[in-house]
Amino acid sequence: MSADDMLIFPGSGSPKLTKHICTYLGVTPGECEVLRFSEGNLFVRILENVRGRHVYIVQSTAFPANDNFMELLFWIDAFKRASAASVTAVVPFFSYAKGDKKDEPRVSIRARVCADAIEAAGADRIVVMDLHAPQIQGFFKIPVDDLYALPVLCDRVKQMNLDNLIVVAPDSGFAKKARKYARYLGVSMAVGDKERVAHDEHAHIVEIIGDVEGKTALIVDDFTISAGTLVEVAGQLLVRGAKEVYAAVTHGVFARGAMERLADSPIRRLLITDTVETQPVTLTPQVEIVSVAPLFGEAIRRIHNRESISVLFPR
Amino acid sequence: MSADDMLIFPGSGSPKLTKHICTYLGVTPGECEVLRFSEGNLFVRILENVRGRHVYIVQSTAFPANDNFMELLFWIDAFKRASAASVTAVVPFFSYAKGDKKDEPRVSIRARVCADAIEAAGADRIVVMDLHAPQIQGFFKIPVDDLYALPVLCDRVKQMNLDNLIVVAPDSGFAKKARKYARYLGVSMAVGDKERVAHDEHAHIVEIIGDVEGKTALIVDDFTISAGTLVEVAGQLLVRGAKEVYAAVTHGVFARGAMERLADSPIRRLLITDTVETQPVTLTPQVEIVSVAPLFGEAIRRIHNRESISVLFPR
Amino acid sequence: MSADDMLIFPGSGSPKLTKHICTYLGVTPGECEVLRFSEGNLFVRILENVRGRHVYIVQSTAFPANDNFMELLFWIDAFKRASAASVTAVVPFFSYAKGDKKDEPRVSIRARVCADAIEAAGADRIVVMDLHAPQIQGFFKIPVDDLYALPVLCDRVKQMNLDNLIVVAPDSGFAKKARKYARYLGVSMAVGDKERVAHDEHAHIVEIIGDVEGKTALIVDDFTISAGTLVEVAGQLLVRGAKEVYAAVTHGVFARGAMERLADSPIRRLLITDTVETQPVTLTPQVEIVSVAPLFGEAIRRIHNRESISVLFPR
Amino acid sequence: MSADDMLIFPGSGSPKLTKHICTYLGVTPGECEVLRFSEGNLFVRILENVRGRHVYIVQSTAFPANDNFMELLFWIDAFKRASAASVTAVVPFFSYAKGDKKDEPRVSIRARVCADAIEAAGADRIVVMDLHAPQIQGFFKIPVDDLYALPVLCDRVKQMNLDNLIVVAPDSGFAKKARKYARYLGVSMAVGDKERVAHDEHAHIVEIIGDVEGKTALIVDDFTISAGTLVEVAGQLLVRGAKEVYAAVTHGVFARGAMERLADSPIRRLLITDTVETQPVTLTPQVEIVSVAPLFGEAIRRIHNRESISVLFPR
Amino acid sequence: MSADDMLIFPGSGSPKLTKHICTYLGVTPGECEVLRFSEGNLFVRILENVRGRHVYIVQSTAFPANDNFMELLFWIDAFKRASAASVTAVVPFFSYAKGDKKDEPRVSIRARVCADAIEAAGADRIVVMDLHAPQIQGFFKIPVDDLYALPVLCDRVKQMNLDNLIVVAPDSGFAKKARKYARYLGVSMAVGDKERVAHDEHAHIVEIIGDVEGKTALIVDDFTISAGTLVEVAGQLLVRGAKEVYAAVTHGVFARGAMERLADSPIRRLLITDTVETQPVTLTPQVEIVSVAPLFGEAIRRIHNRESISVLFPR
Amino acid sequence: MSADDMLIFPGSGSPKLTKHICTYLGVTPGECEVLRFSEGNLFVRILENVRGRHVYIVQSTAFPANDNFMELLFWIDAFKRASAASVTAVVPFFSYAKGDKKDEPRVSIRARVCADAIEAAGADRIVVMDLHAPQIQGFFKIPVDDLYALPVLCDRVKQMNLDNLIVVAPDSGFAKKARKYARYLGVSMAVGDKERVAHDEHAHIVEIIGDVEGKTALIVDDFTISAGTLVEVAGQLLVRGAKEVYAAVTHGVFARGAMERLADSPIRRLLITDTVETQPVTLTPQVEIVSVAPLFGEAIRRIHNRESISVLFPR
Repeated sequence: MSADDMLIFPGSGSPKLTKHICTYLGVTPGECEVLRFSEGNLFVRILENVRGRHVYIVQSTAFPANDNFMELLFWIDAFKRASAASVTAVVPFFSYAKGDKKDEPRVSIRARVCADAIEAAGADRIVVMDLHAPQIQGFFKIPVDDLYALPVLCDRVKQMNLDNLIVVAPDSGFAKKARKYARYLGVSMAVGDKERVAHDEHAHIVEIIGDVEGKTALIVDDFTISAGTLVEVAGQLLVRGAKEVYAAVTHGVFARGAMERLADSPIRRLLITDTVETQPVTLTPQVEIVSVAPLFGEAIRRIHNRESISVLFPR
Repeated sequence: MSADDMLIFPGSGSPKLTKHICTYLGVTPGECEVLRFSEGNLFVRILENVRGRHVYIVQSTAFPANDNFMELLFWIDAFKRASAASVTAVVPFFSYAKGDKKDEPRVSIRARVCADAIEAAGADRIVVMDLHAPQIQGFFKIPVDDLYALPVLCDRVKQMNLDNLIVVAPDSGFAKKARKYARYLGVSMAVGDKERVAHDEHAHIVEIIGDVEGKTALIVDDFTISAGTLVEVAGQLLVRGAKEVYAAVTHGVFARGAMERLADSPIRRLLITDTVETQPVTLTPQVEIVSVAPLFGEAIRRIHNRESISVLFPR
Repeated sequence: MSADDMLIFPGSGSPKLTKHICTYLGVTPGECEVLRFSEGNLFVRILENVRGRHVYIVQSTAFPANDNFMELLFWIDAFKRASAASVTAVVPFFSYAKGDKKDEPRVSIRARVCADAIEAAGADRIVVMDLHAPQIQGFFKIPVDDLYALPVLCDRVKQMNLDNLIVVAPDSGFAKKARKYARYLGVSMAVGDKERVAHDEHAHIVEIIGDVEGKTALIVDDFTISAGTLVEVAGQLLVRGAKEVYAAVTHGVFARGAMERLADSPIRRLLITDTVETQPVTLTPQVEIVSVAPLFGEAIRRIHNRESISVLFPR
Repeated sequence: MSADDMLIFPGSGSPKLTKHICTYLGVTPGECEVLRFSEGNLFVRILENVRGRHVYIVQSTAFPANDNFMELLFWIDAFKRASAASVTAVVPFFSYAKGDKKDEPRVSIRARVCADAIEAAGADRIVVMDLHAPQIQGFFKIPVDDLYALPVLCDRVKQMNLDNLIVVAPDSGFAKKARKYARYLGVSMAVGDKERVAHDEHAHIVEIIGDVEGKTALIVDDFTISAGTLVEVAGQLLVRGAKEVYAAVTHGVFARGAMERLADSPIRRLLITDTVETQPVTLTPQVEIVSVAPLFGEAIRRIHNRESISVLFPR
Repeated sequence: MSADDMLIFPGSGSPKLTKHICTYLGVTPGECEVLRFSEGNLFVRILENVRGRHVYIVQSTAFPANDNFMELLFWIDAFKRASAASVTAVVPFFSYAKGDKKDEPRVSIRARVCADAIEAAGADRIVVMDLHAPQIQGFFKIPVDDLYALPVLCDRVKQMNLDNLIVVAPDSGFAKKARKYARYLGVSMAVGDKERVAHDEHAHIVEIIGDVEGKTALIVDDFTISAGTLVEVAGQLLVRGAKEVYAAVTHGVFARGAMERLADSPIRRLLITDTVETQPVTLTPQVEIVSVAPLFGEAIRRIHNRESISVLFPR
Repeated sequence: MSADDMLIFPGSGSPKLTKHICTYLGVTPGECEVLRFSEGNLFVRILENVRGRHVYIVQSTAFPANDNFMELLFWIDAFKRASAASVTAVVPFFSYAKGDKKDEPRVSIRARVCADAIEAAGADRIVVMDLHAPQIQGFFKIPVDDLYALPVLCDRVKQMNLDNLIVVAPDSGFAKKARKYARYLGVSMAVGDKERVAHDEHAHIVEIIGDVEGKTALIVDDFTISAGTLVEVAGQLLVRGAKEVYAAVTHGVFARGAMERLADSPIRRLLITDTVETQPVTLTPQVEIVSVAPLFGEAIRRIHNRESISVLFPR
């Protein structure tokens, strides 16, 4: 497919990331606009011809989660009705991925509801990053490309030349993925055994499995909202003799209070990516953003040129 | 079906209306709760057994439109996965009904997107009120019961004993429905010929068709957000010799500034219903709420008992 | 896409229009045939290879409405099973567009039934003209291109050099579209306020809104079957002082008796297009046909070449 | 389920059969009406409350095939949107069953197109009689009850006390079913080996397989349109020494000329059922109608009361 | 489409046939592997990039039928999720085609179940050979290309220079197709009239219709499992004076015992194709395999190059 | 619903479990049969009337996995086409639950493929036990009831009066569920940190997290095939000072060699349930079966009587 077949549009949740993806690809972002009415309704309008084009709409769904999700549905519908050849939903942070199971009676599997709505709206493909559970790919019938921030985050960690490093998964749920970080960095791993008591975002740390004495700990996770878990684990790590604590998470979601909580913690630096850019807080220098725009750009290029994406990531 | 088969649950957008519907029906609202996370994610939880029950979830979708809509989808999914025999979405105010067509190139038909998402989530039926266009029923495959506030509003108007009344449709789009109001009240009708210039909620009145000289005008419409159109039409009516101006609209959506605009207008009283109850403004005494809870309650009773609903409304 | 990818086939309802579209495009109509059996069954057969081709089947659905509609479904299925790359249903006159709502209890939304059958048969896109209500686009999930006869009809009106022209919408339902005619012609507008009493095609005119005194009136509408409404409005226009009356409607459906009714009316000339060509009546010279074949041809060319269609029409 | 849950409505193709079914069941046919517009559009209206009822709509699809089929779709949609608990399409003669395969390149499988349209319209079940090929049941996902006229036709044949009887299948396609007739009547069977040359309803008989010398032949088939095949086979039977020829076919479709063709043939009597009642010809006394109304009535009763239908038929 | 767009993969049921198809096309089979776990689970893995490619997966479904069918579903899903542009299921022998109808109460239409599972898994097209009933094409919504082994088998028969040949259909169900063999070979035809008593694969021959005295009989059929029917018909043919008996069937399925049964029969040679290659028996020289690989290869080439396939077969 | 509405049928994979479920419920298993043909095809037949009944078909899918799965699909289809009011697939062991994600490039998400096939076949609900990942519920749109063997297994453990007990999760994937076992038993927990290297069922244990010195260890897991992981973990537990080792797993799948491996291990007793009953091995007295038939029976009773199922399990 020729390059002019490809059009990349920014949703309200990811204007800067879209711009950087386009820069990587040497293309101009598509022209479009969103109107917001006072009762909360959104209205989307595409401002250029997309007939027969392969469209990529980039839209993270947080701050605000529901507005951005509904906007995504309207974009997909608008592109399909405007006769795009295909519509790929690029959702760097898919907030409802957390709602991936019915772990108590009479609740919704919200990620499946969202998957069905995205497919009903007409998306042909979805590109995401560090999906909260790999099973969520199975909520979709359309192809899902789940990118990993691992190489981008770890390459930055390597540049930092941290001494005597150990990777720490904050809980057993992230242990499998943390092992990949440890392997990529060539270091060992520890695991926090935390029990999340309820849906109120508070968690109680039980213990750290593995010896962190005298080590520089790198806590890794897929996302942080309040920074609470990171801070609790970091505290435990120091208690158990860790020398220094760093952290690297893919999605820096950051609710109000997160910066203060980080500031009061022993975490020396927190690496995040630019999948979320609409946080209601101002990031402090303690937080360092590593861009995944080149990764998304390269993935889009490869999708468009029918090249493999899996080669971008370690196995 | 026996009465204990029927369970009515309140969504965040309609707690008071649900309570009044339940009072009409002599039942207790179902137990349920909604959690809101800081990034915007919602989480819904049903707190009683619904297995094999016919569930009605009452949820208007405005203030905030997208949160309330997504919550509705999650409720439907939660009830279906909890094995409800059927789930009826009762959406007194369906805000995206306005997005019912592609009247310019490359936009979304948002009401269809919403209809597809509702059906994909698993709803078996939808009950609405004064849908913005009757064609929207055709966006759904599931049965739609579109209730009319007309008898409730007009019965209140009759009680007001207004002299020499004329019904006024603010534009030709509402003319067909306004004629029903006029017929029910036994009076004549006039029509405003307004042209909506853009999506910015402002409109320019062109003229009033019909003689309003010396009449008491009752402007009727399906919804008002800014009260702008009502106020403009009211002004024109006075210019053309109307004696007094009243208004009756089904959905009092009311964005910020609406009360001030009304206060400065010649509209003596504005009747609305209680389909929207989460407005960000405090209603002034100029606005009178007539409850449609008995109408929704009666409709639900008839649906449950397999009786006709159409007999509730004049033809 | 190269030109030989595109094949245009004539359905029984539109053989002449298809031929003219093909002439515009410089291509030969596809070879195919329809057999009709005595009990009413139809049988369609494609007589050339369509594998991997982009097929356009042109079929208006009137005279007879149901036979032509079923034939359309069979064509779509035959093309899909013959491995066409895509099938576009070009339906210049979609007769069931009138059945777009449930405006009384316990009736069918026939346009949605038809939309579902078209999609179930496998159509990838539909191209129509002056759809009775714009919401009908929302009955389809596949892209709909709704063409407007406006520029073709108005350009012919301009050639006629009518003096002191006013555009007249026969009822408020067509007012919005009539305003576009008025704007395109640079003239003002009046509206008939008619109430359709029942489904028996008779209508009672109430009044004409707007001053037509001394004007040359051009009644515009999307279709006429009996010519009844046109004639009634024309009569009222003369009563209110109009000098002369012309009419321009997109779809000249024309049941038996329509020509006689026109002949006895003050309408000097009625412009129609060639969307319907199987009427059971012989058109008299009072009726002038303006071809929309170039418009359909250009739309097909643009769809095939991925160019914008909206630029063909005024906003 | 109680009896008042069941409502039986007549479509335009089967008013008399519906009446007789209702008589068998001791119920009154549902109130409804069909309007036909001059361009061919149909409009259906249900005249009583069907909310929560189990509805059976009886509609054969011939004379005219396409109008009756579209009417069936509109009925199904109307009943579903009127909130019927279930809609069963009772289609005594399903004319497009003949279009059950792609036996030449680039044709439609019309029976599947019809099945999809019926399911898309919302039918919950279909009841048919002597479907042209048993595989057509597999075109539907909804349950299909395929009734056999065999016991009704054969019981009448038994009453006729025909001597030295042999059952004759007109071609190998009906051989399997003809054997069931022979077994039920306790007689032997012969088969015509006919090759249908094309879609023009004419066929050339090759030979009769089996000894018919001195026998009373009973030709059996699922339907006849022109009576051509029956007459040709009858002629061959006489040539090969048959004493007398009778015939029994389920669906007497009968195009113009069929009666004359029969009159000139050696067929002494032709038994048919009342599945088709809208033929354009007047039946002569040579044709005897045996009613399947009790069979349809009993099947509906059993469906409604959850009893087995298969016990009605011999294996 | 360019040749490198096309990738052909072998399923476990057809490795040799796939290799020969690839040889015909001058391409290399795609790299892939299947793992089998002890409880019976299968796991499929594609070993090369298929993004944007048109994939053909070749998989017959017998020995073992269910494993091979499930493997086919997993292949289709794996290719779709790996972003293949299209996936064509090439199923030379589709074993469940026999389950094409509900010829007794309360059984499954297994071929439709399989068709739905194939479509649900995401196949875009299916290519089969000598489908047991032509109606099965109607079980699919996706295009079906049903190839005929007739020219390949008959050309081999012609080379054998058999004298005074007659084609014999073993039962009336295959009579229509046998006539095509007879016509292609320019000889006459006889038909066995067999009644299959039950599902136990045994059948009772009733008689042979047609004169076979002194003829060389060629029994033709779509498949044989036990060779039982072939042997029984062959015996009857000799009884009725046939000189020699040959047989040609498309699918040589061959259960245990089939070779012995053939060895003891008067059938001099049995021609089969290579659609089944995983039989649990060793074929004896009495059985001659004629390859349909060139036919499948040519069909795939034509599908890929958008050429007609029907021209490969006589009408 | 009355009790005679409910029918429970045994699939080939679970005849004994079905019998015990029926004993619990005081009903007789439904009559049905399965035929197996030599090429591998299955044929299912229901031997009693199921019209309007609520049918439960019990079928585990292992030994053989694919045959049992396909049989399940055919049962569902047969029941639906036989007009069952609803069909609930009770799948005590759903073998493809393991195929729940795309954890390497270009593989199938087999559990989703199976879910889609089950839904396409027409199931209305599925009841499973200890689904390998809770997210699999989201692969289905129909309601899923996931039962837990925990109370049954733990109550038996309590009877065993094991001293100084500690629950051990063999890997972090089961840690969350193991904690529920520990909580139910009122004891502490340890976790094995094992890394599964490839799909060859072998795994390498890295370490045990938690102090097991002097404890009686109870390894818990959802299933075991080769018993390999259990044996490896048991060995490590002894190395780290555990006194005795027991194990309790829900699904005792048991491939050949499992009994020998267990016999050579320090595991004193292995508790399993009767979800799998078609293992190719003879269980030794080291393995004790605890029946989940009462749990399935009670769940079916509650589903049928519209009572809560969640109350059966601890939170």
